[in-house]
Amino acid sequence: MEFDDVYFMRQAIREAVKAYEADEVPVGAVVVSNNQIIARGHNLTEQLHDVTAHAEMQAITAASHYLGAKYLPHCTLYVTLEPCSMCAGALFWTQMGRIVYGASDEKRGFTTMGGQFHPKTQVTIGVEAEVCADLMTEFFRSKRKK
Amino acid sequence: MEFDDVYFMRQAIREAVKAYEADEVPVGAVVVSNNQIIARGHNLTEQLHDVTAHAEMQAITAASHYLGAKYLPHCTLYVTLEPCSMCAGALFWTQMGRIVYGASDEKRGFTTMGGQFHPKTQVTIGVEAEVCADLMTEFFRSKRKK
Repeated sequence: MEFDDVYFMRQAIREAVKAYEADEVPVGAVVVSNNQIIARGHNLTEQLHDVTAHAEMQAITAASHYLGAKYLPHCTLYVTLEPCSMCAGALFWTQMGRIVYGASDEKRGFTTMGGQFHPKTQVTIGVEAEVCADLMTEFFRSKRKK
Repeated sequence: MEFDDVYFMRQAIREAVKAYEADEVPVGAVVVSNNQIIARGHNLTEQLHDVTAHAEMQAITAASHYLGAKYLPHCTLYVTLEPCSMCAGALFWTQMGRIVYGASDEKRGFTTMGGQFHPKTQVTIGVEAEVCADLMTEFFRSKRKK
């Protein structure tokens, strides 16, 4: 098993599936440091009645708690969906070393709604994008059927 | 005692002073519903080693918890400083009814860094702005002296 971007994105997808199964918009994230997952998160906004409970926010808080540090320049965040303005803003503050996201979010992603990552952050887009996007499409299709 | 914008902003300033006394960047917030403060928050990023622990984020989470609702269209958030992109993004998701902020933040505020409030949100700027800004100035001046 190679610990590459596809491997870690699939771990983020596992988190997204947990959200899906809990009837939450299926977004998942993991934070990696030295090839090791130090934090996981999935969307919990419905369960917690809290808009701030996005996957990235929980993964950031968990990673910071694990490291005892609020800056994460040596970490990589993998997330299944393009971050929103809130999450992009949080990632800016962390000075996250690298951000890898799967599917783009043309409606609510930060590239549409505004915001930016830290200028030092490396960014990779589109890893396992189809799987990430399909999860979202399937979730909203099943919602409409109800 | 009149429950007006100045009254509630002064309550947010009391929160900011708590942050100041804890050696945190002095920003404070309160959420008001039906003329009643239902949530308070002040910046805790240093204490919690967590960039997401801004005053507004904590006040949003507390208000949502109090009301058992993730949307807050009938609430007003008072905050001493212009929200950053992260907090503006969170406020967007809450559909906050009204946002009142004191001092502008030309460097890190969302009007500079990107992001937006919800289109239905009413916005009032500059209430007790001088007190709010002075707290920030004094904080950074004392930091430089150390």
